[in-house]
Amino acid sequence: MTEQHQATALRPTEAVEFSIDRVQARLEEFFANRIREAEAYHPAYAHLWKLCSERTLGGKRIRPRLLLDFAAALGAETESNETLAASVEAIVDIATAVELLHASFLLHDDVFDGDLVRRGTPNLIGALVNEGAGPLEQAAVGPGGAHDSAGTPSGSAAPNRLHWARTCGILMGDLLLAEVHQLFARTHVADAQRTQLLDLLAHAITESVVGEQLDVGLEDGTVAADTATVLEMCRLKTATYTFELPLRAAAILAGSSSPAIDAALAAAGAHLGLAFQLQDDLLSTFGDPEVHGKDAYSDLREGKETAVIAAARMTAAWPQIEPSFGSGRLDAAEGARVQELLRECGAERFVRGLIDDQMRALHETLADATSGLPDRARQTLLALADRLDGRRS
Amino acid sequence: MTEQHQATALRPTEAVEFSIDRVQARLEEFFANRIREAEAYHPAYAHLWKLCSERTLGGKRIRPRLLLDFAAALGAETESNETLAASVEAIVDIATAVELLHASFLLHDDVFDGDLVRRGTPNLIGALVNEGAGPLEQAAVGPGGAHDSAGTPSGSAAPNRLHWARTCGILMGDLLLAEVHQLFARTHVADAQRTQLLDLLAHAITESVVGEQLDVGLEDGTVAADTATVLEMCRLKTATYTFELPLRAAAILAGSSSPAIDAALAAAGAHLGLAFQLQDDLLSTFGDPEVHGKDAYSDLREGKETAVIAAARMTAAWPQIEPSFGSGRLDAAEGARVQELLRECGAERFVRGLIDDQMRALHETLADATSGLPDRARQTLLALADRLDGRRS
Repeated sequence: MTEQHQATALRPTEAVEFSIDRVQARLEEFFANRIREAEAYHPAYAHLWKLCSERTLGGKRIRPRLLLDFAAALGAETESNETLAASVEAIVDIATAVELLHASFLLHDDVFDGDLVRRGTPNLIGALVNEGAGPLEQAAVGPGGAHDSAGTPSGSAAPNRLHWARTCGILMGDLLLAEVHQLFARTHVADAQRTQLLDLLAHAITESVVGEQLDVGLEDGTVAADTATVLEMCRLKTATYTFELPLRAAAILAGSSSPAIDAALAAAGAHLGLAFQLQDDLLSTFGDPEVHGKDAYSDLREGKETAVIAAARMTAAWPQIEPSFGSGRLDAAEGARVQELLRECGAERFVRGLIDDQMRALHETLADATSGLPDRARQTLLALADRLDGRRS
Repeated sequence: MTEQHQATALRPTEAVEFSIDRVQARLEEFFANRIREAEAYHPAYAHLWKLCSERTLGGKRIRPRLLLDFAAALGAETESNETLAASVEAIVDIATAVELLHASFLLHDDVFDGDLVRRGTPNLIGALVNEGAGPLEQAAVGPGGAHDSAGTPSGSAAPNRLHWARTCGILMGDLLLAEVHQLFARTHVADAQRTQLLDLLAHAITESVVGEQLDVGLEDGTVAADTATVLEMCRLKTATYTFELPLRAAAILAGSSSPAIDAALAAAGAHLGLAFQLQDDLLSTFGDPEVHGKDAYSDLREGKETAVIAAARMTAAWPQIEPSFGSGRLDAAEGARVQELLRECGAERFVRGLIDDQMRALHETLADATSGLPDRARQTLLALADRLDGRRS
């Protein structure tokens, strides 16, 4: 979505400079300050900030772009560009915070999933593991194969190195989560707006945590995997903070918030986010690993309870798929076989149908004139949905 | 320290009700609200909040008590009880936040240390592991003994159950960390005070994270263990958020903050906190497990790099101690033998000497009249130091 998103991003109104470059500059300043501060403490701590900076500064900025674009759309519609210009600093603050929230979630998510790679390059944990031997590097990995007892593919990394790397990942996630709140708490807006923003942040964090908990519970088998639970997990884990949060934050910051608008944006965010996540599940199961940047078959190998799998569980093909699913030892030939089974049994088609359902629901939400959602905002959301559709092919 | 602390707590001035009960009530209200909110999401999420509530509501409240007592002492000295009374709500907010910060750190610390027990009862992770079989409970633990590849004593718990439990521990730590910031961000104080409080919170979190990182690095062998690093780790990991944060927050909230007072309180907090942590190391190495509530020899078994161990490393006795240290299989007889070696080699005496150094430095800090620290505040800090001394016997 991102590349297309970037290309077709709505033009901000002339009075307001809503460039993503300002968010990038803020992020660069933040990391530079933190690295400087960290150097006064300990080299290991400074190193952690440097690794995090390298990985975070190269992100795609989907969420801050969405916030900036949508704030611009609302500002243009309400023709209150002066008010809006006064709050551009606050918009950049919150857009920066939204990006750091994403980075924080990714760090903890990689710990939960045991991932050492993201988009084809080592993630923070992978970098720390690869980085060469600490004194205890030679400690043996127990036998028993590709998964350690935390349910994680441990590869050839020594346990102490992995433990160190994961600890650093958790701590860095904590630091970024703290910074997100600092940005929300300090941004220069009216008290009522800040309270609304803080409420929204709490809501987004709660839903993301519930979603993450369900995701892990589904994978570990502590939560039963049915399609409804998997869909709710997707909405909670991804849709809320990726779509609902930027959209509603933009409305608050643009002074366009109202209970009806909030409700419409929450619904629109859920539908867009769920469609986005379902697309992501399709792409990572059936797509080209060169394009989506994940290991081919890694979701299947790890036993990730995606909507595709939830659908396949309901079919007669499942007994053929189950032995390979989450086995941790899925090679390319077996991966391709499972992929074919998932297509044949109708799971792929079923998920495409779910995406269509979300798109229909989005159009219904936007067609409801009682929400008071400005036309330009509607158009922005519909344009987003179109780009999502394009991503299917 | 706590029981004595409770008994000899300074009386609040009559105009101001600084009872710890108000913090307790706030915590109870917070957890009740969160459990109610969680029930609307998923039973597994509500269950997590219930477990966390049970474990957090029974705490000793060392940090909020310190904040309340010190704010009362400053209020009495400055004779501005009216101003102080007006900000009692804010003091209770921040005292509550300080307790939740502690709870958040403990949750993540237990993940890093692989602990399933705290003070003799299962911690959040232990409770989730013990709670009975999920569908995958029967999954085998790899051979290779008491430590899994995350460097964690895995006991007999199945890998998936452990992974689920640790994930929940990390997520709950995140939720509490978020709540801490919400309390700081929303408390009704002047903007300048809120900025000071937010700065202080950021400082406390940074130092605690650096301390935790060093602690794990020392244990995993990625950071070299020398006495200076171990002491700095102790200060960062424990002293800052346990002593400096409540003391300085109290000064800000009581309107008694100034650069000189802040500096004096930062130093006093560091000395008190370091002495406290060194005492803790002595107690958990040599004390009665019935009293300190940890597993006997658990620090030795896990290879915890305490000041006692750092001192022992410098002695001729170390080669006799090293094979048992961090072996993961230390039984009672071997534990008692290592204990005796640590006494004989002078490590215990050395650490007692370090505590005396910190006490001397505390007295010097408090004797410096240029700080402008009110007399009543000095007395409170000296009384705290006396109680700490009493804890040695």
